Amino acid sequence: MIKRELKAIDYLEQGELEKIHKASLTVLEKSGVEFYSQEARDILKKGGAKVEGEKVFFPPELVMEQVGLAPSEFTLHARNPEKNVVIGGNNTVHAPGYGSPYVMDYAQNARRNASYDDYVAFTKLAGLSENIDVVGGVLVEPNDITDHLRHAKMLQAAVKHTDKCLMGSAMGSKKAQETVEMASIIYGGIETVRKNPALISLINTNSPLEFDGRMLDALMVYARNKQPVIIAALAMTGTTSPVTLAGSLVQQCAEILSGIVFAQMVNPGTPVVFGSASSIVDLRTGNLAIGSPESVKMFSVIAQLARFYDVPSRGGGALTDAIITDNQSGFESMMVLMNTVLSGTNFILHSAGLLENYMTMSYEKFICDDEMLGMVKSYAQGFPINDDTLALDTLLKVGSGGNFIADEHTFTHMKDMRLPLISARLNYASVTELIDTPQRAHEYCKTLLSEYQNPPLDEKTEAELDKYIEGLG
Amino acid sequence: MIKRELKAIDYLEQGELEKIHKASLTVLEKSGVEFYSQEARDILKKGGAKVEGEKVFFPPELVMEQVGLAPSEFTLHARNPEKNVVIGGNNTVHAPGYGSPYVMDYAQNARRNASYDDYVAFTKLAGLSENIDVVGGVLVEPNDITDHLRHAKMLQAAVKHTDKCLMGSAMGSKKAQETVEMASIIYGGIETVRKNPALISLINTNSPLEFDGRMLDALMVYARNKQPVIIAALAMTGTTSPVTLAGSLVQQCAEILSGIVFAQMVNPGTPVVFGSASSIVDLRTGNLAIGSPESVKMFSVIAQLARFYDVPSRGGGALTDAIITDNQSGFESMMVLMNTVLSGTNFILHSAGLLENYMTMSYEKFICDDEMLGMVKSYAQGFPINDDTLALDTLLKVGSGGNFIADEHTFTHMKDMRLPLISARLNYASVTELIDTPQRAHEYCKTLLSEYQNPPLDEKTEAELDKYIEGLG
Repeated sequence: MIKRELKAIDYLEQGELEKIHKASLTVLEKSGVEFYSQEARDILKKGGAKVEGEKVFFPPELVMEQVGLAPSEFTLHARNPEKNVVIGGNNTVHAPGYGSPYVMDYAQNARRNASYDDYVAFTKLAGLSENIDVVGGVLVEPNDITDHLRHAKMLQAAVKHTDKCLMGSAMGSKKAQETVEMASIIYGGIETVRKNPALISLINTNSPLEFDGRMLDALMVYARNKQPVIIAALAMTGTTSPVTLAGSLVQQCAEILSGIVFAQMVNPGTPVVFGSASSIVDLRTGNLAIGSPESVKMFSVIAQLARFYDVPSRGGGALTDAIITDNQSGFESMMVLMNTVLSGTNFILHSAGLLENYMTMSYEKFICDDEMLGMVKSYAQGFPINDDTLALDTLLKVGSGGNFIADEHTFTHMKDMRLPLISARLNYASVTELIDTPQRAHEYCKTLLSEYQNPPLDEKTEAELDKYIEGLG
Repeated sequence: MIKRELKAIDYLEQGELEKIHKASLTVLEKSGVEFYSQEARDILKKGGAKVEGEKVFFPPELVMEQVGLAPSEFTLHARNPEKNVVIGGNNTVHAPGYGSPYVMDYAQNARRNASYDDYVAFTKLAGLSENIDVVGGVLVEPNDITDHLRHAKMLQAAVKHTDKCLMGSAMGSKKAQETVEMASIIYGGIETVRKNPALISLINTNSPLEFDGRMLDALMVYARNKQPVIIAALAMTGTTSPVTLAGSLVQQCAEILSGIVFAQMVNPGTPVVFGSASSIVDLRTGNLAIGSPESVKMFSVIAQLARFYDVPSRGGGALTDAIITDNQSGFESMMVLMNTVLSGTNFILHSAGLLENYMTMSYEKFICDDEMLGMVKSYAQGFPINDDTLALDTLLKVGSGGNFIADEHTFTHMKDMRLPLISARLNYASVTELIDTPQRAHEYCKTLLSEYQNPPLDEKTEAELDKYIEGLG
């Protein structure tokens, strides 16, 4: 994970932020949020919210009181404890793309349905990346696996091929429960899992101002087991939210707060993440514009709002509207990624691989994004300033007109710089062929996958997990 | 120009910054800087510096006293006063690429020598850009124009094809003098030019710790005429500066300060810019790595040091080490550009067009970078928060499960979003051909150039300028 040395960018002035906060409280009190689960509404009513039909209204004091129960930060545990991450504070944790139904194959420049083989391959790439911390979840949609087993097969791949932190399934209570049971096998019992949160899951809102039953059911399973949940608004400006950024943020904030309040009512102290995957819509075409500066502005404010409520944040990613790994894909992804990190976002889903907003995972783009993650991390971590690095002695010794190449100080520090994975630092005159980034990424990716080795996994645990999954059908 | 709403990123803590500052003063006092001009050394000696041979030593108090004479910000005047820009404060001013000997032609994907036709074409593109403020200077090197006329023909093109602010020539006193004389023709007399600075020129150091005579001679001409000069360190880590970023910054700071002190001694109050075009070197290959995170860190600190000395800053650009307009070129350029803007850099040379560090100007890259400039500008300028944009009434009216598309608020604000120049927002399923960004940029660029119209220029002024240039040779 990135331990940021830079102070997070506060995108809004405090007074502006509070205007969004106050308007959100008004929406929660006056407009309300629909919760499509009787069980959820019963919990909310018991907790002090006002329920009318499927609509739930929240008094402002209740919101602030319940949000105050959520931890400021928490540790997510990996099966290899060296790969635990802290979500919150100055940390930024990265997870790869999530939910794409398609992949872009590196052998043929065309989109096709994602398969379980793709899921496994992307899991291996995520496992190898120095910058990706969390795997599992819907890294890509394995369309060739029957629905009732998908969540289990995905978790199995994540556990076998990596020893990193895991995401859970948010597809209803049954799958969530099975995911918790698998985690119990992997981590040595349900009590360990409850004590050391092991699964982070993504609970999306239905904008505007709704939660569907499947998501609420999953949330309840995770909250009861003290597993962290990301509550993420999924609003699109001008269609499922107001067209203005300020108005959209008011709605998003209301949606997220209502989900956080609900999680606390299910089980006080449940770790939550204040999240957004919202975007503007290009109203000329009706297409999303997630690689736009407006979408990044919203992510920056989401991170700032989360700090205001003293809970961790989620936003951003290496996001682009480009459909191939070209120049636009590079500059849009870097803009979103850099600014969400610098804005202090704690959990960044979609950190690698995505093209065509959230539709396609590309092997080459994954490698290019991993390169970007290393660059962003380097920038966010600053550089050391001390007597040795200030190099005053060296400067006085070499002096004007001299050359530092042969100096011992140069020799000592020449390896301080970050080496790129695939980026070219070439002279035009020295090349015989103009090879572009995706071509280099393609070769690099093939090598990585052909040489991949699974990290060690206890045989008994593996057998028990396999047996459990077999038992599911 | 960009009027930034965001507070500039302070990359270092104050104590760290002061360590660099103090070490720089020690270098200026103990190591000294070589000034390869007798006239310059005489001025420096008279001003209170200690001169030994070609080396000049600066007492710390003298440095701070002289730097204090430079203005915090100044206005650069265009022949169209609507295009004046303020350099300093919360403003970021953009100039395109500078100094490339080569261009990448959009008809053939290959590098070739730059010509005057290229110079004119890039001047037109810069003139059309909503994001480029300053033209002239060595936009590309017009290799087909005889050396003693180049500066004049470049200024002529800039004045005929645009009405924006101008850069001057830094190639010795004769060319600088002629540039000032041409400016007098364009702006209506030398007194006007002296009162309303019209030419900004780039004075590079010879790292480590040297100034060549040609640059010093040009500086003296401009300073005597109160024209702003950018004093820019051009250090390369591990070769012409210490390999560590801290050490390199100490040297750069010393070089820039000595140039600023000299400018103030020539003419107190001369507008200066605290600048850097320094970069790390990839010591495995000996190539520059200007698209690296380390190079951006240095730019960010340069901007912060300039604020410390209360003078405007220069750094950054849409910089890349890629040799074609590919993914790497996109993400590197965005990283450097975004962070130099967010770090509060006031003057950004190399804002559009460059490939292969500073070697090649590309037509397609210019368009892609212009797109990026618009995106960075949008992000840096924030968004309005008021009762109308907070949209509380709209939110309460539409409510949960509703749709905002038909609401009047949506109709009123749907044009608030920035429209891309060439970026695609497409569905894969809707396209028949995968067209990449440079291809779109190529078509866009051809259209722009074919439809170009010069802004109005007073006939008498034009004739006088033409006659002056004819008289040069």
